[in-house]
Amino acid sequence: MKENTKTTKGRTKKNKNEIVEMPIEYQLDRKKDTMVYALGGLGEVGKNMYCIEHEDEIIVVDIGVLFPEEGLLGVDYVIPDFSYLQKNQARIKAVIITHGHEDHIGAIPFFIQKVKINEIYAPKFAIALINKKLEERRLNKSIKLKEINHDSRIHTKHFDIGFFNTTHSIPDSLGVLINSPNGRIVHTGDFKFDLTPIGNNSDYQKMAYIGQIGVSLLLSDSTNSGVAGFSLSEKKVASVIKEQMRKTPGRLLVSTFASNVLRVNQILEAAVACGRKVAVFGRSMENVVEIARKQKVINIPESSFIGANELNTLPANKICIVCTGSQGEPMAALSRIANGTHRFIKIIPGDTVIFSSNPIPGNDMSVSAVVNQLTRVGANVVVNSPLTSLHTTGHATQEEQKLMLQLIKPVSFMPIHGEYKMLKQHIDTAVETGVKRENCFICANGDVVALRDGIAFHAKERIQTDDIYVDGNDISGLSTSVIKDRQLLADNGMVAVIVAINSKYNKILCKPSIVSRGFVFIKESQTLLKEAELIVYEALKEKMLQKTTFGELKNCIKSSLEPFLFQKTNRNPIVIPVILNSKSAMQQNQEKPKPKRTTKEA
Amino acid sequence: MKENTKTTKGRTKKNKNEIVEMPIEYQLDRKKDTMVYALGGLGEVGKNMYCIEHEDEIIVVDIGVLFPEEGLLGVDYVIPDFSYLQKNQARIKAVIITHGHEDHIGAIPFFIQKVKINEIYAPKFAIALINKKLEERRLNKSIKLKEINHDSRIHTKHFDIGFFNTTHSIPDSLGVLINSPNGRIVHTGDFKFDLTPIGNNSDYQKMAYIGQIGVSLLLSDSTNSGVAGFSLSEKKVASVIKEQMRKTPGRLLVSTFASNVLRVNQILEAAVACGRKVAVFGRSMENVVEIARKQKVINIPESSFIGANELNTLPANKICIVCTGSQGEPMAALSRIANGTHRFIKIIPGDTVIFSSNPIPGNDMSVSAVVNQLTRVGANVVVNSPLTSLHTTGHATQEEQKLMLQLIKPVSFMPIHGEYKMLKQHIDTAVETGVKRENCFICANGDVVALRDGIAFHAKERIQTDDIYVDGNDISGLSTSVIKDRQLLADNGMVAVIVAINSKYNKILCKPSIVSRGFVFIKESQTLLKEAELIVYEALKEKMLQKTTFGELKNCIKSSLEPFLFQKTNRNPIVIPVILNSKSAMQQNQEKPKPKRTTKEA
Repeated sequence: MKENTKTTKGRTKKNKNEIVEMPIEYQLDRKKDTMVYALGGLGEVGKNMYCIEHEDEIIVVDIGVLFPEEGLLGVDYVIPDFSYLQKNQARIKAVIITHGHEDHIGAIPFFIQKVKINEIYAPKFAIALINKKLEERRLNKSIKLKEINHDSRIHTKHFDIGFFNTTHSIPDSLGVLINSPNGRIVHTGDFKFDLTPIGNNSDYQKMAYIGQIGVSLLLSDSTNSGVAGFSLSEKKVASVIKEQMRKTPGRLLVSTFASNVLRVNQILEAAVACGRKVAVFGRSMENVVEIARKQKVINIPESSFIGANELNTLPANKICIVCTGSQGEPMAALSRIANGTHRFIKIIPGDTVIFSSNPIPGNDMSVSAVVNQLTRVGANVVVNSPLTSLHTTGHATQEEQKLMLQLIKPVSFMPIHGEYKMLKQHIDTAVETGVKRENCFICANGDVVALRDGIAFHAKERIQTDDIYVDGNDISGLSTSVIKDRQLLADNGMVAVIVAINSKYNKILCKPSIVSRGFVFIKESQTLLKEAELIVYEALKEKMLQKTTFGELKNCIKSSLEPFLFQKTNRNPIVIPVILNSKSAMQQNQEKPKPKRTTKEA
Repeated sequence: MKENTKTTKGRTKKNKNEIVEMPIEYQLDRKKDTMVYALGGLGEVGKNMYCIEHEDEIIVVDIGVLFPEEGLLGVDYVIPDFSYLQKNQARIKAVIITHGHEDHIGAIPFFIQKVKINEIYAPKFAIALINKKLEERRLNKSIKLKEINHDSRIHTKHFDIGFFNTTHSIPDSLGVLINSPNGRIVHTGDFKFDLTPIGNNSDYQKMAYIGQIGVSLLLSDSTNSGVAGFSLSEKKVASVIKEQMRKTPGRLLVSTFASNVLRVNQILEAAVACGRKVAVFGRSMENVVEIARKQKVINIPESSFIGANELNTLPANKICIVCTGSQGEPMAALSRIANGTHRFIKIIPGDTVIFSSNPIPGNDMSVSAVVNQLTRVGANVVVNSPLTSLHTTGHATQEEQKLMLQLIKPVSFMPIHGEYKMLKQHIDTAVETGVKRENCFICANGDVVALRDGIAFHAKERIQTDDIYVDGNDISGLSTSVIKDRQLLADNGMVAVIVAINSKYNKILCKPSIVSRGFVFIKESQTLLKEAELIVYEALKEKMLQKTTFGELKNCIKSSLEPFLFQKTNRNPIVIPVILNSKSAMQQNQEKPKPKRTTKEA
């Protein structure tokens, strides 16, 4: 059967070197086959959500958010489209969270408002973080969180689910083994192989055993598939940080990802070991430290923590400040410290600031701005580099990905968690370890990989998916047309033209008035706007010599104004015509003083 | 005297380690001292513009633009504030351009419209580029461009100016020696020390001689002061590209900076040497190739160039396409090729795309998007890395900066071209080569370093500078309040509330109408907006029970609407109240049909 799933398809062939084999797409048998698909996480880094479906049962793994790019103006989160799961909510038999990072748990509050489920399975530390998140939105009563660990088992009619420990930058990170009627499926979650880990070790033996008994399909983390080699151990970073704590003569400020709880703990422990007291600043950092202390992940004594008021009572070399802002986020603690707008902390000469982090793609400019500002106010700034070893990734690089592939030894492979180029590179890596290229599946969100008797194939069917933009608390999502309007407003501003007419007498009652925002500096452009009002007025007067419609009048406003504004300013603001028809108002006004609603067209 | 320029100033001192010496600022003697200052280029990478001023003479070096960050919505260019030079235009005795890159010539069209000067001195290749720029804006008649080279001299009453060749990523790059009444000043322009250069060699002997006879102040390029070591030679990159041309079996697409004319030439020569014909796509690339061919910088035969129509007549391995888009610019040739929207070129399986470039800070996301898309449509993509050596910088790294410092041996040092952290790092590098730290000046735009009898000091005086934002053709600049409005519009959209009142009878004539853009998807939010109109109406009715003012009514609209909208959507759109007062119109309407202008307040 496997041989049959492959054939050559009619892509353009220019010469012998370019023959590209494309698998033909198979017809799904929904009674027999086990379906695997993503509602988020493929072709992107974030909003991870994978589903395994067999007959009347669906297993969901992770419910993450994606933080929007700059182009998505005003969008707070991008979340998966839950509509397929909404329609099939009775079939959802288990929702499993692999670990507590935002790109795996962040969309839970939106999900449970849309899809009726009773419980979510999650490891201990993730539960603490999810609880905090639900409490903030007053949703904690609406769902039961059930703790799982590497020994847990979940049974449903068709599935038998187990777990194994992985190392990652947060405690309690799990990989998932799903025994399906058509073969074993392994989902790695996020992982790295840290051979000298902080916290839990990887379940090498369990993974090897799973590989031994045979895996049909591996879904593995692709985030770092473009990076060669074996990544640095957290233990190395911890020792570098401790050395910095020891040798730095003055105050030390350390910024890192609040989500990297193990790193935060290492920083705090190093500080205490070097005789420094610690002060923690920034909302997410304070939250995570509070939760990690409750969970006994952070165990330094209460007496080692100091508040803002104690900062001036200690010598500089007895202080370590741990704060948010390693990505240059303008409202985070470190940015405010750099700008002199932080309530408690000002940089003093002799301060050293350490970035135990790398800029996430897209953040290099904002990080650079904060480094410049910190330098300007007198701090000595140390950033991560191959020389300084102040940070390491939480995701497997190529050699670690190979180790996962060697331990699990899957027949088929579906790279997950990553942009297209990362997924493709991960397949090249998998092929190097012996997976057959024809058994590797590079998918988009919504694509279905089906398992039938242990053999995987690309199904013709797709599942409905989309990017849902969340701005504020509108969980129905922000329309792309709204974002498009925002882009137009952002680039050129807007000009609203308000004119009152009497449609009965075909007369202009009030000459056009122009209101603008984000277009020109109004104080300096009175003449321009006056001139514009006149041009619209003349155009409307001429138009209204004959019988006309609201639509025609609106077009008349736009077509008279837009060329004029472009000629004068080389800009194309959004022109919004507003026509008030005062016909009824006028009449009523003449009859009785009480005003009535007028017709409006905009 | 030098000893006197230093003393300790009253910064907060926490302990012995933190004593920071600050130079006291000296009073300038405008009759005696030579002033050096920047109108752009310090604390930023771009809009370079440096001035040397003595008594009644000003020398200007470079007139560049800065390309705006994403936060500057709709801004096309940032240019220096020319107001000081406008006021002193009669004193400008020479305007010198060091080389033809945009951050050194880009603001010339704006400058010559604001400041009356007769001529600009520039090296040959820069003149060709400036001419093209001025022709496009029909300004080429308004200025004379005078060619200079390493042998040129410019004499004014106080200054005697000479030049030396440097290596950079464009032909004809010059350093400037300015003999002032108070000592010699050297301005490096942009430079690297490429020991096996393409094009002009560095004038090692001349620089060494200048150092020998004694330099009071060096202004040197800081762009790469954070990068250790000696940068890669262009010749190495050229050989790597040639090897790629040879070994790639199919079509080769190469994308690089159009501004890196020497690289473009190397790519074309390598293609021809490997038996490929070349096709050039993208406006800036086509322009630069045309100019470089006219200037004999590119010398490959006419017969090696092919047009779009010939692409399908040649075997794939005989084709090399050179195009713009190495920064992922959405409208550039490569992005359109990736997206399938290019008029002539589609990716075919077997194509190889080479990025002979690095992402400029801030562009990593857009480059990544293009790489993903090219991979998705079947191209083999090769980007620059330490392993591939497909690109090198045009700016000196630390060891090269040291070589410049060693050759010029300045008494005082002022790092230029760079963000604050780069300037600071460059000073640390200078100190390593023997410059005294107290003779190093880290300046902001507008700060004045003064020379008196060969000794430099920080003057108290500052020169007026600013960032001028250009959107479209408005050379007066875009106000920051407009950009702030655009940011608000971009994040939350806008809601305009239009209401017509009769102020005489204190009546509402037309119930409030709401028009919105970029806020909610209007089709789905009719109820919300209707409700909002009602809320405003009720608030206004109550307000108008008593005598009131336009200002109060506007506040009433905002204060009734904003909390409602925030509660419903968690968003804060800009609320724009527009009040039409139809009092006069009503009266006139009753008397005679001709409408008259009504009062408007917005």
